[in-house]
Amino acid sequence: MAIISVDAMGGDFAPQAVIEGVSEALEHVRYIDKLLLVGVPEAIESELNRVGCANHPKLEIVAASQVVGMDESAATAIRKKRDSSISVAVDLVKQGRAAAVVSAGHTGAAVAATVVKLRMIEGIERPGIATVFPSPSGPFVLLDAGANVDSKPLHLLHYAIMGDVYARKVLGHERPRVGLLNVGEEDKKGNDLTRIAHAHLRQMPHLNFIGNVEGRDLFGGNVDVVVCDGFVGNVVLKSCEGLAKSIGDMLKNLLKKNMRRKIGALLAKDAFTELKETCDYAAYGGAPLLGVDGVCIIGHGSSNPKAIRNAIRVAGEFVHYQVNDHIKQRIIATNASVSLPPSEL
Amino acid sequence: MAIISVDAMGGDFAPQAVIEGVSEALEHVRYIDKLLLVGVPEAIESELNRVGCANHPKLEIVAASQVVGMDESAATAIRKKRDSSISVAVDLVKQGRAAAVVSAGHTGAAVAATVVKLRMIEGIERPGIATVFPSPSGPFVLLDAGANVDSKPLHLLHYAIMGDVYARKVLGHERPRVGLLNVGEEDKKGNDLTRIAHAHLRQMPHLNFIGNVEGRDLFGGNVDVVVCDGFVGNVVLKSCEGLAKSIGDMLKNLLKKNMRRKIGALLAKDAFTELKETCDYAAYGGAPLLGVDGVCIIGHGSSNPKAIRNAIRVAGEFVHYQVNDHIKQRIIATNASVSLPPSEL
Repeated sequence: MAIISVDAMGGDFAPQAVIEGVSEALEHVRYIDKLLLVGVPEAIESELNRVGCANHPKLEIVAASQVVGMDESAATAIRKKRDSSISVAVDLVKQGRAAAVVSAGHTGAAVAATVVKLRMIEGIERPGIATVFPSPSGPFVLLDAGANVDSKPLHLLHYAIMGDVYARKVLGHERPRVGLLNVGEEDKKGNDLTRIAHAHLRQMPHLNFIGNVEGRDLFGGNVDVVVCDGFVGNVVLKSCEGLAKSIGDMLKNLLKKNMRRKIGALLAKDAFTELKETCDYAAYGGAPLLGVDGVCIIGHGSSNPKAIRNAIRVAGEFVHYQVNDHIKQRIIATNASVSLPPSEL
Repeated sequence: MAIISVDAMGGDFAPQAVIEGVSEALEHVRYIDKLLLVGVPEAIESELNRVGCANHPKLEIVAASQVVGMDESAATAIRKKRDSSISVAVDLVKQGRAAAVVSAGHTGAAVAATVVKLRMIEGIERPGIATVFPSPSGPFVLLDAGANVDSKPLHLLHYAIMGDVYARKVLGHERPRVGLLNVGEEDKKGNDLTRIAHAHLRQMPHLNFIGNVEGRDLFGGNVDVVVCDGFVGNVVLKSCEGLAKSIGDMLKNLLKKNMRRKIGALLAKDAFTELKETCDYAAYGGAPLLGVDGVCIIGHGSSNPKAIRNAIRVAGEFVHYQVNDHIKQRIIATNASVSLPPSEL
């Protein structure tokens, strides 16, 4: 059972969406002992009253007077706004009062606060955001989705291990297929980064490395963990979000063009609903920031209550399955077996 | 009017699809004087007979005995297979017998043959593949889509200029909006490459630089030219292709699930057809390899006749609008005004 601190002020629709998500989590999520709601007490209390959760025994409010705006610089925000909701929420983990933190606020600020306050797991240099993508044949996890935009080969090796552990423990894959995102399938393809990383991934013990995967393979159901630099991962994540939305909008407009189409769309309505549900990021919860010595789950900025509830679920599972302990063991074993020349680190 | 050499053996469905595309081009494409069909004469003749184009006055067969397979190494293929269809097709441009070459074969081999035989435009270090993406609000061009997977800032500046010229001359934009693909909109966001490139793009004269664009902005209709490193561009291109196909497949399956949905789908059928046509890469023709001192249009490996016909159209327009002459002028002007310290080149 876990105590989780929740940044109640983080996200485009905070605190409303956050508190609604908290109320849903209380009802549906396992592995939760208590939720610490961090932010402006009056705002939180008023929302708790609205959703009928005031005085809930599993909830506690922790005051934080400031909020990091979405357009602030991450570094400055963490340095100057020491009483911001995200800072205080991470402090609770640092002080041992919570086992995990959930925030749908400024991603850069959440990453910076977590890395600075909780530090990295020994042996890991850079954190990676692990994002779950829906696909017709089941979800896959891609990392890094934007924490580290100038990766070195060693970082990619660590992403492979951390993604493997996450896919095993939280997504329930027995032997996750780990692929390196690249511009071609052949081993020698790629840029300097992926060519070096590929050669080392091939040698790594206890990793089911299936080689390079291309963009077009992502949604084909042949890979469970996709490893890439954070710049590439972030651009892919957002491009896919944008394209899916654009296709949806286009189809919606085309189906409104005449009466015949409108009737057709009405008859087939639940097919569109099913498609939308499959593609709904909110169902897949928040993205864990892997590699830090603590648990931080990052929600999409535009998180709705369902997304918040699922981010809380992921936090609970992360703690319950002791993901970080497993990562630590694997990293020690790997760093002992892989030695990269200084030029490749 | 232009003479264009066509790699008749290049592509997953060559020579059938290529010759069918040639026959369509003869009927529908302007700015074409003659097409030189390069490959195994018997195979080409037999296809020409099939489509009823044998002895067409605008067609000429040029013999090439070898074909580069899709899984060969580009460098080796060009060095060892001197009589391959792509090599001979590029030679025709080098000899001045053709003004442009079109190939849907091995992309790496086409790039290598073109760069080695035709050389780069003076002042440009690396070529870039310019791919046109469909979007609800009209197509945009993204470059580089995979020719250069370890870009330096200077390469991105040149991509911006070349993409700008291409969007003006071939896509007909009066003042193309040029964006840098990045992980955030703010000027300081990004990796080392994009931060340096951004600062210089801001200073460039005669360029309508609109700043950083994110993956989610691509399909929103707010940018005409998207500049990025070839690794990133290739991954985005293929991810979007894969996602669009995956959404289409999912929807198709969901619409078959029961009779009610089937009837609905039937009534709305032409909406799906319209959507498919908007997203059809074949309609947008081949992707020019910009930066080389000659014209090379690269088709998708799985090009159908429509894609080949449109690649030939793009080749004709490229020659007609003297795109390379405009690029040369702009590069001279830019290289004179931008000076990057050696560490940033």
